[in-house]
Amino acid sequence: MEVTENGVGAIDGPTNPMVTPLLTDLYQFTMAYAYWKAGKHQERAVFDLYFRKNPFGGEYTVFAGLEECIRFIANFRLTEDEINFIRESLPGSCEDGFFDYLRGIDCCDVELYAIPEGSVVFPKIPLLRVEGPIAVVQLLETPFVNLINYASLVSTNAARHRNVAGKSKTLLEFGLRRAQGPDGGLSASKYCYIGGFDATSNVAAGKLFGIPLRGTHSHAFVSSYMSLDEIIDKSLSRKDGSSTCENFVSLVQTWLNKIQWSSSLCGIFGETNQSELAAFTSYALAFPDSFLALVDTYDVMRSGIPNFCAVALALQDLGYKAVGIRLDSGDLAYLSCEARKFFCSIEKEFAVPEFGKMAITASNDLNEETIDALNKHVGERILCRHPFQESKRAYVVPQQVEELLRCYWPGNSDKRRETLPTLRDIRERCIQQLEQMRPDHMRRLNPTPYKFAMPNEPFFPNLEACYYCSGFWTRYQSHYQPRCC
Amino acid sequence: MEVTENGVGAIDGPTNPMVTPLLTDLYQFTMAYAYWKAGKHQERAVFDLYFRKNPFGGEYTVFAGLEECIRFIANFRLTEDEINFIRESLPGSCEDGFFDYLRGIDCCDVELYAIPEGSVVFPKIPLLRVEGPIAVVQLLETPFVNLINYASLVSTNAARHRNVAGKSKTLLEFGLRRAQGPDGGLSASKYCYIGGFDATSNVAAGKLFGIPLRGTHSHAFVSSYMSLDEIIDKSLSRKDGSSTCENFVSLVQTWLNKIQWSSSLCGIFGETNQSELAAFTSYALAFPDSFLALVDTYDVMRSGIPNFCAVALALQDLGYKAVGIRLDSGDLAYLSCEARKFFCSIEKEFAVPEFGKMAITASNDLNEETIDALNKHVGERILCRHPFQESKRAYVVPQQVEELLRCYWPGNSDKRRETLPTLRDIRERCIQQLEQMRPDHMRRLNPTPYKFAMPNEPFFPNLEACYYCSGFWTRYQSHYQPRCC
Repeated sequence: MEVTENGVGAIDGPTNPMVTPLLTDLYQFTMAYAYWKAGKHQERAVFDLYFRKNPFGGEYTVFAGLEECIRFIANFRLTEDEINFIRESLPGSCEDGFFDYLRGIDCCDVELYAIPEGSVVFPKIPLLRVEGPIAVVQLLETPFVNLINYASLVSTNAARHRNVAGKSKTLLEFGLRRAQGPDGGLSASKYCYIGGFDATSNVAAGKLFGIPLRGTHSHAFVSSYMSLDEIIDKSLSRKDGSSTCENFVSLVQTWLNKIQWSSSLCGIFGETNQSELAAFTSYALAFPDSFLALVDTYDVMRSGIPNFCAVALALQDLGYKAVGIRLDSGDLAYLSCEARKFFCSIEKEFAVPEFGKMAITASNDLNEETIDALNKHVGERILCRHPFQESKRAYVVPQQVEELLRCYWPGNSDKRRETLPTLRDIRERCIQQLEQMRPDHMRRLNPTPYKFAMPNEPFFPNLEACYYCSGFWTRYQSHYQPRCC
Repeated sequence: MEVTENGVGAIDGPTNPMVTPLLTDLYQFTMAYAYWKAGKHQERAVFDLYFRKNPFGGEYTVFAGLEECIRFIANFRLTEDEINFIRESLPGSCEDGFFDYLRGIDCCDVELYAIPEGSVVFPKIPLLRVEGPIAVVQLLETPFVNLINYASLVSTNAARHRNVAGKSKTLLEFGLRRAQGPDGGLSASKYCYIGGFDATSNVAAGKLFGIPLRGTHSHAFVSSYMSLDEIIDKSLSRKDGSSTCENFVSLVQTWLNKIQWSSSLCGIFGETNQSELAAFTSYALAFPDSFLALVDTYDVMRSGIPNFCAVALALQDLGYKAVGIRLDSGDLAYLSCEARKFFCSIEKEFAVPEFGKMAITASNDLNEETIDALNKHVGERILCRHPFQESKRAYVVPQQVEELLRCYWPGNSDKRRETLPTLRDIRERCIQQLEQMRPDHMRRLNPTPYKFAMPNEPFFPNLEACYYCSGFWTRYQSHYQPRCC
């Protein structure tokens, strides 16, 4: 995306071209008409967007979807075709002047303030504040909620997975086939990455967002082979190019035989599945430098692991290092322990250094990590009150003070527009914010609620708005009673 | 969409332009490379797509998403840009010949057979059978599963709602703001319509798919008004155009006063909320012919309903008929009964015919409908066997015999291509198929499992494939053992 500090139009449109001003509920247009008919459409209004409850039984949420909202309003214009459709969809009695009005609207008069994308946020705190002509700001409600709800849900889910997996594990997202449609999948890949995943299987997401890609082969690939006879070109050059092994298949078979009769492994398995062996061999011939095998098509311990080891040892003879195995079913904890033992036996029996450290990938459940709480107190104390019950007050010692809402879209006002960060920067912010959280707020079972309070004196100038919240998407108008701070 | 019996290219692309050949898992491309490297890529393979379990604890599923799959393969070509991205994503050792091969592929050699969209289907029955070169057919797996899973889930959910609501109720879908992103919302609107909903609030879905639109106003609209003084233009012409009421606001106030002091309603309410009254009045001035009010912003019985009635009676004086109310919170069953009583009192007290029949819309839960089972037996009996346990056999008397899989994409073969039906036709099929189901299979609590069997003799020529299923998406290849029928 092209990000500049210039005015309207310098920002690309939404990632999904189907995100148009028509991607909204019809009643936003009927209300816009009623505002227009009552002469109220240009009245300035302020809307806050917030949520009521953290998802997944947790005590925090990762805010995401902001960039798509900005892309949307930066390019908000109704086409003639769209206006005609709105005319057809409203009662015939609607006056022409309204459609002339629609023809002229954009988001030049709108200002949007938001918490930076990737921030850790809490219920009832405004994530976005949108100011502008009431009819225009009303039309933005549905697309904003649509673009932020799912994005924040997925980022939060990803952050929770990262939290239980710990920093050292690699987390891959393979969700495209189970996602809610095409861009349910595309945005899940993007927002999982923001929440702390390392890579995706989704090629289109890799291209669109620059997310690292991962993928090897499926069960279908394994079962597409019948026997080693199917492999026509059996030659494989050594990694250093010094010579060529003319019959890699035979080398694999030799190794399988050695493993089968080795003293430490004797009795663990008999005949392995030949279609699986052919598939692994064929895959290794195609990707000798990145051989990773899915070992659970037939029997993990009696076929998948021995077949994998035979191919990996044959590759080792030619100077290549196999990557490891993937388990996709069964008792993953038990199988990965048994696989590790098997690899260690191979390392010992055949004196192959590091073979015992072969990577084991599981495409399934993660275990919960229990971590200790840390709490730091610094700085001076300030009197704060409960955001909804004014009589509840407490002294709070802030750890860090940060302005929550930043101006990401100043419209035609002379306010400075906050630069939209790159996807990697957003992800970095998310990771940093999560690291700053106290672990007891983060744990999966019975997390401690994160308490937030408002300073009695105006201290956080943008935090007072949460005082007025009464629905998922609440509307404020400038003629409401002045805010108390 | 342009639907013809001609060859490739006569069918529009997928609704969402982001559905490209890159919308797939990376391993489909790594496998395609391994097939190509092994010289197997042109081998003919057959894949079946099916599911394992009906959703929502039910015993049936509505099949949807087929049209998008056909649009996808009809336009399946990799662009130079996409091929370059695949090259960057695969190891540098991959040979150029593979990318030349990718440059040439399309779905001319692919044949696709499917159950008609909108059909009621059951687990483990193939929904799609795809035949073609193994490397190409492999690349189609992820997009097909993505396009069908969510579509079928939503259509089934909609059909279940229709089943409990009964035929006479109007079902509206307002899901865009809670949907999984933009086309999560768009496709939900489409597939709810297929499953039996009547209309949507989603304007873009109305435009794209021709689904009827519905929508009036939200709580934000109600709270945007402070008092009746805000209404500048107070005039409203009579419906027949014969004269103009210069002060509609005053007429509304007169009616509110009459209701307040009426003998049958006295004591039910005192002062109503004036901002709500102003919003209703303003909305009625904008839409006198389709006045429907959201009555739960403040207090349904003490403010919303009396305010609505005052405006509706004022409209009635000028020859307009109000549509009704919408309830969006609280005890919907209780409130709708109380509202009905209130409307009946108005009808009686002020002699307004039909006022008691005012529409009451609820945007929330539905009640379960209990319906009786019916079972018809006709025709001759045939010997069938259990699809997975060959020894289990039973005589079955078919009610109806229908070929399940139809050829929707013949590729270059000379088979006839089944015409893609319109959205309305698909919806009609779905409704008809659901009507043919025995109610005990359809009930929400403890539905009777739908038993399916395979004829011992080849009777349903396309049904035998389910015998081989062993995963969500299983692959068959022509050199597997011949099928048993």
